[in-house]
Amino acid sequence: MSEPVHLLGISNAIVDILAHVDDDFLQQIGAPLGSMTLIDEARAHEIYAMMGQATEMSGGSVANTVAGFANLGGSAAYIGKVRDDQLGSIFEHDMRSFGVDIRLEPASSGSPTARSHVLISADGQRTMQTYLGACTELAIADINIDTVAAPRVILLEGYVWDIPEGPALCDEAMRIAKTNGTTVSISLSDSFCVDRHRDAYMQAVQSDVDIVFADEDEMIALFQCDTFDNVLKEIVGFDNLFVMTRSEKGSVIVKDGDTVVQAADPVANVIDSTGAGDAYTAGFLYAWTHDKSLAECARLGTFCGTNVIQQVGARIEDGLLSRYSG
Amino acid sequence: MSEPVHLLGISNAIVDILAHVDDDFLQQIGAPLGSMTLIDEARAHEIYAMMGQATEMSGGSVANTVAGFANLGGSAAYIGKVRDDQLGSIFEHDMRSFGVDIRLEPASSGSPTARSHVLISADGQRTMQTYLGACTELAIADINIDTVAAPRVILLEGYVWDIPEGPALCDEAMRIAKTNGTTVSISLSDSFCVDRHRDAYMQAVQSDVDIVFADEDEMIALFQCDTFDNVLKEIVGFDNLFVMTRSEKGSVIVKDGDTVVQAADPVANVIDSTGAGDAYTAGFLYAWTHDKSLAECARLGTFCGTNVIQQVGARIEDGLLSRYSG
Repeated sequence: MSEPVHLLGISNAIVDILAHVDDDFLQQIGAPLGSMTLIDEARAHEIYAMMGQATEMSGGSVANTVAGFANLGGSAAYIGKVRDDQLGSIFEHDMRSFGVDIRLEPASSGSPTARSHVLISADGQRTMQTYLGACTELAIADINIDTVAAPRVILLEGYVWDIPEGPALCDEAMRIAKTNGTTVSISLSDSFCVDRHRDAYMQAVQSDVDIVFADEDEMIALFQCDTFDNVLKEIVGFDNLFVMTRSEKGSVIVKDGDTVVQAADPVANVIDSTGAGDAYTAGFLYAWTHDKSLAECARLGTFCGTNVIQQVGARIEDGLLSRYSG
Repeated sequence: MSEPVHLLGISNAIVDILAHVDDDFLQQIGAPLGSMTLIDEARAHEIYAMMGQATEMSGGSVANTVAGFANLGGSAAYIGKVRDDQLGSIFEHDMRSFGVDIRLEPASSGSPTARSHVLISADGQRTMQTYLGACTELAIADINIDTVAAPRVILLEGYVWDIPEGPALCDEAMRIAKTNGTTVSISLSDSFCVDRHRDAYMQAVQSDVDIVFADEDEMIALFQCDTFDNVLKEIVGFDNLFVMTRSEKGSVIVKDGDTVVQAADPVANVIDSTGAGDAYTAGFLYAWTHDKSLAECARLGTFCGTNVIQQVGARIEDGLLSRYSG
């Protein structure tokens, strides 16, 4: 059985391929601005061939959170499937460079490592065309007491429900977590993903999930509300810890009727908003696993999110915690 | 035989792996700040394992120039060796995305695609540890009338002399060029490279090379002078066109006793100086292949170099020429 860690993430292991595009490009491929579309390998080759010069970097929402959590100094482990190809090596290298304990070997056969074609518009918005590749072969057999062990908290990615054995393997992860007294958290990924899996998420939230990380749109989609105020009314009867980010409106944390409202830090110039929520979650969970108050968790989360939007890329920078004053 | 183009580049085809490091890291691996060291595959794995999270992007000095030249709107072709692996696909994709005509198929066997571990210090200086991989298998058989054809100008990279068949294949490229009335240019790569191959470069400069692109340090190394002023005295007897860049001191162009001195553009904030010389060469050659005066060539070169140092990465941005006022 693996060493106990504070955080274990289970998610799609993805390398981002980033390029700037004009609005015509998005129209041409029929992608709504800001959307994430799942594509097959043939379409991935088509999209890539149409894209301009690109930059490659490790990505994936919960993988960003795990990397950030480890970079803050937290002990972290990761379960996600890559192939033994060069993109897989890049992904694993980057996770290991922060000291993350990689719990699955790269697959020696099957689909190539996943990549997300990240199309950056002139205004900095991102539209993603994602080929899941090896991620889709993450299997229930990969989730067991050896790989999950007994972390303080596991973080499941909403996108995992998109892959064939995703719902079953998340159930198994939650079952193992409950056996070991591990806290179960989930990050809701995006509102379209919530639309695809609303019933499964709601069932999980009402049973095994302890902490829900979501942005305003995802909460509105999950509870099928028209406003965020109505979301706050809907969650009154739940005993989960809800951690809800609202971009420039800050974040709202609700637990058992108590509410923490955390303002956003003023930012003169947003360079790239990608990964803000992932970094927030990293900071929040780092404070949470160090037994800080919810208000302190929200402040560190905000600090990390603010850092990420002032640079290109979704992963928080080295040595960030040394500049944190609480 | 391939379509005629304005520029054909022959060089090492390299993907850059960039990460920030502290000075201890450079000491630990014994790399002088700002140097480029050639390493073998085992050492490449060691260095990579020691590096933090990285970003991957296509690089290579003359490849940057060819990409920039094509991105300005020039017709360009490229000869360089990659393997049929994922890094090779990235390299070729990025060249093709600018319309560059790739003249060699990726190798289906042999060493993996080259990568340069680019270690960025706190002050923005770059130290490179380069594994040449597939580049070393570029062979004289790859250089023939079909692949070289009859471009207006070929640009040879100094680094190519580092690979086993490099000197011979450059000789063959120059021979074909001379047969077809193609202008031969060379980019001297770096001063250590000049030290390694001084005699071969000098012989080429005195025979087949028409245009020499070099920075101040490379010219000082080539002519074994102590100052740039003495370099200017040394080249009086040569009939080559010398295009010499001097960072913030601008550039100096000398041909048959005529001298053009071009000042650098003022830049408030240098983000990343990598690729400034490569971009300068792209702009210079674009103007040159459009029959502009040497003064105009120097101005467009400066404009392109200035653009590149105000962004991260070595390749000039899209649509740059539309903002050029001459």
